[in-house]
Amino acid sequence: MTVRVGVLGATGAVGQRLIQLLDPHPSFEIAALTASDSSAGRSYRDAAKWRVDSPIPADVADMTVQATEPNSVPDDVDLLFSSLPSSVGAEVEPDFCKAGYVLSSNSSNARMDADVPLVIPEVNADHLDLLEVQRDERGWDGAMVKNPNCSTITFVPTLAALAQFGLESVHVSTLQAVSGAGYDGVTSMEIIDNAIPHIGSEEDKLETESRKLLGEFDGASLTENSVEVAASCNRIPTIDGHLENVWVETEEEISADDAAAAMESYPSLELPSSPDPLIHVFSEPDRPQPRMDRTLGGGMAIAAGGIRESPFGLQYNCLAHNTIRGAAGASVLNGELLLENGYL
Amino acid sequence: MTVRVGVLGATGAVGQRLIQLLDPHPSFEIAALTASDSSAGRSYRDAAKWRVDSPIPADVADMTVQATEPNSVPDDVDLLFSSLPSSVGAEVEPDFCKAGYVLSSNSSNARMDADVPLVIPEVNADHLDLLEVQRDERGWDGAMVKNPNCSTITFVPTLAALAQFGLESVHVSTLQAVSGAGYDGVTSMEIIDNAIPHIGSEEDKLETESRKLLGEFDGASLTENSVEVAASCNRIPTIDGHLENVWVETEEEISADDAAAAMESYPSLELPSSPDPLIHVFSEPDRPQPRMDRTLGGGMAIAAGGIRESPFGLQYNCLAHNTIRGAAGASVLNGELLLENGYL
Amino acid sequence: MTVRVGVLGATGAVGQRLIQLLDPHPSFEIAALTASDSSAGRSYRDAAKWRVDSPIPADVADMTVQATEPNSVPDDVDLLFSSLPSSVGAEVEPDFCKAGYVLSSNSSNARMDADVPLVIPEVNADHLDLLEVQRDERGWDGAMVKNPNCSTITFVPTLAALAQFGLESVHVSTLQAVSGAGYDGVTSMEIIDNAIPHIGSEEDKLETESRKLLGEFDGASLTENSVEVAASCNRIPTIDGHLENVWVETEEEISADDAAAAMESYPSLELPSSPDPLIHVFSEPDRPQPRMDRTLGGGMAIAAGGIRESPFGLQYNCLAHNTIRGAAGASVLNGELLLENGYL
Amino acid sequence: MTVRVGVLGATGAVGQRLIQLLDPHPSFEIAALTASDSSAGRSYRDAAKWRVDSPIPADVADMTVQATEPNSVPDDVDLLFSSLPSSVGAEVEPDFCKAGYVLSSNSSNARMDADVPLVIPEVNADHLDLLEVQRDERGWDGAMVKNPNCSTITFVPTLAALAQFGLESVHVSTLQAVSGAGYDGVTSMEIIDNAIPHIGSEEDKLETESRKLLGEFDGASLTENSVEVAASCNRIPTIDGHLENVWVETEEEISADDAAAAMESYPSLELPSSPDPLIHVFSEPDRPQPRMDRTLGGGMAIAAGGIRESPFGLQYNCLAHNTIRGAAGASVLNGELLLENGYL
Repeated sequence: MTVRVGVLGATGAVGQRLIQLLDPHPSFEIAALTASDSSAGRSYRDAAKWRVDSPIPADVADMTVQATEPNSVPDDVDLLFSSLPSSVGAEVEPDFCKAGYVLSSNSSNARMDADVPLVIPEVNADHLDLLEVQRDERGWDGAMVKNPNCSTITFVPTLAALAQFGLESVHVSTLQAVSGAGYDGVTSMEIIDNAIPHIGSEEDKLETESRKLLGEFDGASLTENSVEVAASCNRIPTIDGHLENVWVETEEEISADDAAAAMESYPSLELPSSPDPLIHVFSEPDRPQPRMDRTLGGGMAIAAGGIRESPFGLQYNCLAHNTIRGAAGASVLNGELLLENGYL
Repeated sequence: MTVRVGVLGATGAVGQRLIQLLDPHPSFEIAALTASDSSAGRSYRDAAKWRVDSPIPADVADMTVQATEPNSVPDDVDLLFSSLPSSVGAEVEPDFCKAGYVLSSNSSNARMDADVPLVIPEVNADHLDLLEVQRDERGWDGAMVKNPNCSTITFVPTLAALAQFGLESVHVSTLQAVSGAGYDGVTSMEIIDNAIPHIGSEEDKLETESRKLLGEFDGASLTENSVEVAASCNRIPTIDGHLENVWVETEEEISADDAAAAMESYPSLELPSSPDPLIHVFSEPDRPQPRMDRTLGGGMAIAAGGIRESPFGLQYNCLAHNTIRGAAGASVLNGELLLENGYL
Repeated sequence: MTVRVGVLGATGAVGQRLIQLLDPHPSFEIAALTASDSSAGRSYRDAAKWRVDSPIPADVADMTVQATEPNSVPDDVDLLFSSLPSSVGAEVEPDFCKAGYVLSSNSSNARMDADVPLVIPEVNADHLDLLEVQRDERGWDGAMVKNPNCSTITFVPTLAALAQFGLESVHVSTLQAVSGAGYDGVTSMEIIDNAIPHIGSEEDKLETESRKLLGEFDGASLTENSVEVAASCNRIPTIDGHLENVWVETEEEISADDAAAAMESYPSLELPSSPDPLIHVFSEPDRPQPRMDRTLGGGMAIAAGGIRESPFGLQYNCLAHNTIRGAAGASVLNGELLLENGYL
Repeated sequence: MTVRVGVLGATGAVGQRLIQLLDPHPSFEIAALTASDSSAGRSYRDAAKWRVDSPIPADVADMTVQATEPNSVPDDVDLLFSSLPSSVGAEVEPDFCKAGYVLSSNSSNARMDADVPLVIPEVNADHLDLLEVQRDERGWDGAMVKNPNCSTITFVPTLAALAQFGLESVHVSTLQAVSGAGYDGVTSMEIIDNAIPHIGSEEDKLETESRKLLGEFDGASLTENSVEVAASCNRIPTIDGHLENVWVETEEEISADDAAAAMESYPSLELPSSPDPLIHVFSEPDRPQPRMDRTLGGGMAIAAGGIRESPFGLQYNCLAHNTIRGAAGASVLNGELLLENGYL
């Protein structure tokens, strides 16, 4: 038995990835697509400029795109994946929740709200029950779970694997792919033979979202992790795959081998989109690399490598596919967790 | 009156940049070119596959390339710029010094030797007098000064500007251009739509060379600076210009404004190739960028930007042209310092 | 004595190149800058996001940008360089001409109008006198000369050099840089690790503009050249420099050597921006190349190479810097021709 | 029942693709791997620097690489795929044929030999019987079939579809990916922000191989097609996928619609690696594009688009994945044809 799902913001870059990942999917069936008013009423084929590297699914292509508002989504749709621009998401996502829909959202609005679970299933699945608090407080029949920013998702699983040693401080530099800014986000004149440092608003997300993800939920409220994180975010001329340089200081001193073992053995989940292993650890020092390793585990794995001791603790590199594990796939995985935990 | 100079390893990528920078030069005149045995006896035009972005100088093009050995260089040549592969440099550079030549070398061999000055003129010109110790110990008529690795040169001037506040620790991530690996160093299959982390042997150079450059020379020996440096080096698809993300912890707490002022006012030198200002500080947060800013000051300036306070002290980005300020121009500048200080 | 000039559309990519080329210029002095209403009233520094690879000229940076309308330009300005979007140009350029201004325009509107000279000075300077016809017909005090599309300018000078042998047919494939589409014209997602064929409306320009440029002006009207041209235009991931593959069939059979000699000896002009030689012919078969050769002659030279006989006549490659020789520099050169010929 | 096969030159770029395509394969089982002497005796995992975008097959990784000579290949191996450098192929491939092995070779040596079938199965499967002539003339127990150059394979199927209208002349410009030159064939310094025209020896292959492929075999000898082909070959900064601009003049005048219909209906074959349809015709004018369309049909389809009438007949663009359809997949497909036709 499959759950009927919808995609809010279906024509954008993440929306297209969502459709690619959901067609087919063992538990979900696409039943509604929404986009901006200018797309409403057109076929998906016409409204979306399809740019994903597999053909547009034939059945989805002929669906009619609806306006992004609760009454344009059929009642028998139980789950909505949202990849709306954050300003739009901030405005309309609560309306959908009020109307009884459960949202798995990639939009950045509301991620840091105290009663909104921010979830990477393999890291903090237990935070999902913050939805009970959310429903109580907001009086919603529906609910809203968020996944973090793509650059946050890339390194937090490796920190989760090391958390047993006591996380004290993290420095992280990112080398981010252009797809992370959306299809029109980075012009070719900006990035060919170039790199852009200190990219807007990413650094703050890594610093705050990681503390929430690694925090503790006691059934009533969430206490953030005390780890201090400093991020420096760069855009480079790659299409997909965020590469990150990480330094971690831990309370307990650990060797590179211990760290590698902790990452390799970090458990995956029995959800359709969760890869096994979750973290692929390379022994080659110059891996992972974006073009070579971004599709590991169907784009859902975290890759790590170059694990070594530094003057200040541990140092390593990690990588994830930013529009699959870091966005569309993250939302799908949260949808699978919602189903598994009885929220649908 | 001009000094007659030679270029050892004149056909390689750095050798070509040396010739571009030396033709013309107010104090130096090219009088000898050497390369590997396979090039010896050929015209420079034939031996070098010229790839620099200005035409090959006509007078140099017709010079005959000699083998890289002391007796192939005319006696009236006083200064040799060396851009030999380090394994070759280790073998033959001492022979030239013994034979009485003064070398300004970009090759990585011997950089960390106790009696070899490793110099960025604007940072530690006083280290040059280590040459007296060198001549005493080695019995050379000639002498050898080295400039550091391109990725070291990019960030050390900014640290020198901050040294007054007491340097404690530095984390640095580099986004390095392909030209830093030499003309054939990085294949297109390796780097298009990709990035390579943890690139070989760069990280150690940043960590050790920076401590030597920032050290103190008391006239007899050199004491390294105690700052701890941890580096993570990446190759990205840019042609020229190394961009670096830096975090610095200082003894004395400083604001971003203080740091910017310290960098902007850091003194330049009155040498032909020294730019004024040495450090160009951008107020735009997303600068410097490689393609936009690598030619500042004729490729000899250091660019800095995004200076901000972080959870752990100060954070900023810096950039330099890796084959000009970071290699060929660094050697030329050391040659100018040798001339100024009476070593020629 | 310098002529006071203005730039219409000064904040765009070509507008910025115009300012770079005009500051300084031996004959012209920038006295007015216009842009869209949203920029009017702001300093040029604020209104333009400066992206050219040399610093913004200090005196221009502080000028106030005006709205693009005749009464916002001082009366003592004699010449206006126009790099307006073609839809805007179509609307407002005639107003400036009516108001007495002489325009050297890069905008694509009106290029094929029978009484508008389309000029590459080294190719068809005599067409400039079509301005007499234009003024007669339109009753303008001012006048308007156009330069062709960047991809047209790249190959027409080589055809002009071969015209003595009788041009019959031309096939041309272009490999065009992203800057040709303007700063925001090509997204990074569209072009990294990719190429785009059959790019919009370029092909028609090559086919029609080349026949007009190579046509004959008898003092009263212009007869187009009868050569048949078929173009195939592609966008590739290069920043600047259009490379073109050309096949030419001529009435008189010619050897590759004859063709090379004809190109090399094709005369340049004594105008400040005209390079000497106009056409740089490479003997290396794999040249010209965009990154290596686009700055020949300050970006104003045409480069040719790989000249060889094919089953169907002659075959070769050519290249020009698309935003200098192909746009801003082309307009400046036409301005110099206007001055030389007494139109200012 | 599967055929045991070997790969000659298994560690190179095409060799790796061969292994990716053969593991698994419905008819073939990898039983032998050879490479240069320096790799012989090592495990494939150690000898090959695996760079293909899927993990190295586990069973192949542990196989021992043998020297490239007939007696290092087991007798029960029936078919050898050869991706040797052409100079090596010229030397050793005949030895394997003498020793009784059947070769499906991608190496460029011997492609134009009169008794060597050069085959694209969907285009000229009947040429395979030239093997009877070959065995007669050379006295071999084995045999050798070749596939053409990657840039030839890209456009010849489209010509085959149009051959019914009488091919007279073809102009073709190629925009070729770097992988076509092998892993180390193009340095990053050569190609980032650049393009290389007139690349060595490609143009001649397109011109001669296409006439052989489109020729007629009467059971005894092969008559080349009389179509005149002029090629201009360029390297651009793409990883995989050759894009080509084609102009075709035909005896019978045809419309763009007729041409599209002829391509779309051109028959595929019932071989495991033959895609259906063979030629995918795009209606969007700016397709096919390398990154978007190179994996159509598992990388075995030919994509065409932009079909339009030109002053000189027909004009269109086409694309194929150069290391799959253009090399490794081409050899595998020829292997499948050999099996189908009883040569194994």
